[in-house]
Amino acid sequence: MRVLISGFGTVGQGFAEVVASRQDFFRERYGKEVRIVCAMDSKTYASDPDGLDPLELVSVKNTAGRVGRNTYEDSVKVMDSVDYDLLVEVSPTDVLTGGVGLTNIVHALECGKDVITVNKGPLALKFPELIGLARKNRCKFRFEGSVGGAMPIINLCHENLMGERIKSIRGIFNGTCNYILSKMDSGQPFEQALREAQQMGYAESDPANDIEGYDAACKVVILANSVFGRNVTFSDVNVTGISSITSEAVALAAANNMVIRLIGEVSDSKLEVSPRLIPKGHPLGISGTLNAAQILSDLAGPIAITGRGAGRKETASAILSDLIAIMDARK
Amino acid sequence: MRVLISGFGTVGQGFAEVVASRQDFFRERYGKEVRIVCAMDSKTYASDPDGLDPLELVSVKNTAGRVGRNTYEDSVKVMDSVDYDLLVEVSPTDVLTGGVGLTNIVHALECGKDVITVNKGPLALKFPELIGLARKNRCKFRFEGSVGGAMPIINLCHENLMGERIKSIRGIFNGTCNYILSKMDSGQPFEQALREAQQMGYAESDPANDIEGYDAACKVVILANSVFGRNVTFSDVNVTGISSITSEAVALAAANNMVIRLIGEVSDSKLEVSPRLIPKGHPLGISGTLNAAQILSDLAGPIAITGRGAGRKETASAILSDLIAIMDARK
Repeated sequence: MRVLISGFGTVGQGFAEVVASRQDFFRERYGKEVRIVCAMDSKTYASDPDGLDPLELVSVKNTAGRVGRNTYEDSVKVMDSVDYDLLVEVSPTDVLTGGVGLTNIVHALECGKDVITVNKGPLALKFPELIGLARKNRCKFRFEGSVGGAMPIINLCHENLMGERIKSIRGIFNGTCNYILSKMDSGQPFEQALREAQQMGYAESDPANDIEGYDAACKVVILANSVFGRNVTFSDVNVTGISSITSEAVALAAANNMVIRLIGEVSDSKLEVSPRLIPKGHPLGISGTLNAAQILSDLAGPIAITGRGAGRKETASAILSDLIAIMDARK
Repeated sequence: MRVLISGFGTVGQGFAEVVASRQDFFRERYGKEVRIVCAMDSKTYASDPDGLDPLELVSVKNTAGRVGRNTYEDSVKVMDSVDYDLLVEVSPTDVLTGGVGLTNIVHALECGKDVITVNKGPLALKFPELIGLARKNRCKFRFEGSVGGAMPIINLCHENLMGERIKSIRGIFNGTCNYILSKMDSGQPFEQALREAQQMGYAESDPANDIEGYDAACKVVILANSVFGRNVTFSDVNVTGISSITSEAVALAAANNMVIRLIGEVSDSKLEVSPRLIPKGHPLGISGTLNAAQILSDLAGPIAITGRGAGRKETASAILSDLIAIMDARK
């Protein structure tokens, strides 16, 4: 399996480290290693048809600030210069245009390559087109890490619950908001909880993407398209963030044995992100930076899953699960 | 796919209903229906090589008190008289001897048939033997519903998290205990909460199997053997139940923002069921009759799942997920 990694920030590096740590597993299960034949960051690339050393790529990136010696202008030309089976697209998310990630995914699928991505931009903007392209060219297209990081929500719906009729998914899809709301549960006012989230590195200096619910809305769009077969985009989501939640509202909820959580909800007819009252002890009443989702289906009833929504290893673990599924299908 | 159902109580009937409700799905995915060629209860059976009507089986059982007109003494002779591909073993659990369920599973595997069971007795007593028999005869042997009902814990570990190194699983594996402890959170004393659980039909009139932790211990044994590759049995588990938990202990926990939950824990070195303090807002701090499990692995970190631990449709949904996996593998 020859892999081209596009994007060599935290997630790309984490994935390279995971590949290095799992070569024994790949050899045992598939009789061969996973070869990283090319790694691109935003300006440079390294390539070797015999495979690059994953840990050396990480080391070079961290010491030299670039993944390779070769510079490029056009990522498509780099992709065309390499023989690969699978694109792992983990460049920075651009939810306005899809960015270079969208270009790379489209090009790989058009060339008949399998694709794994965690890049929410292309998925939130162009899901039906990308799925259509993958079907037409008989490529695998997987994106477990794009919703909830390490939490295996998409594969759970598609695989474990394949025989179920899924009625709705409600979830906590933004760990930063959940951290802030959890701090408000212990009496902190919103502004102070937000500052603490920023100091902890959970929230950006411009926190709008998190606290206004836009990030959660992207995940809701991905679930609506991939699990419910809908054809929706970011602008179809009714979004309310958490910036107007007062300490008084949180205290009133607590007095009724409830907490306030920012919940994304998807069903055949619903597409919404908004603060909701959740009973304490409910699977969606969790505290801290975890993500969570509760899937309601006709036979199993409610099944909830929680996991870390972000992180280097954690997001790489989601890519690994997609990689294993693709390699199993090729066996 | 020709199925023999052994056991036609709540779960067997629920499975028959699920088969009836999913024939469109089976036709679309596999180009054929699932045929129930034989159904046995404890004394009678019905069989038809062309397939029995699943809903009529349920109706006959509920009106006549028996699933078929034919009586039998020896279940193995009935099995030998039928051409089938898959045994669905859902007869009553017997954790002392394994009961007729163990006999039926062993016989089916020896005859090269695939087996799905939710019967904890054979699994908690004879796991290594059964897995060995399945491997030797190249049969699929699946048992998702035996731990946590609808909660897909086993398939999650084996499939979604296949590339992870799982370090431990901690979970709530008995909904009755969790119901009682949740009621104690709202101030009820133990005895009253237990009576309420009995009135609601959650606890048996002899509640020892639940409240002394024996049922949870069976699930811990199944996870230890199936996920951690250990070779343990019921008597290897350190078990403490919930009958000595006082209202004072629950109140003291609450004053520290904690709840008391009966937690089963499995790892390479641990095998335990005992009451533990869990922080409020933790994924294992849930209330009510739900089951929950938190899997700790090297890349994904903690992933938790919750679902209904029992119920007619819910347990049948776990059997359905195993059935789909087996039919996919045969495609």
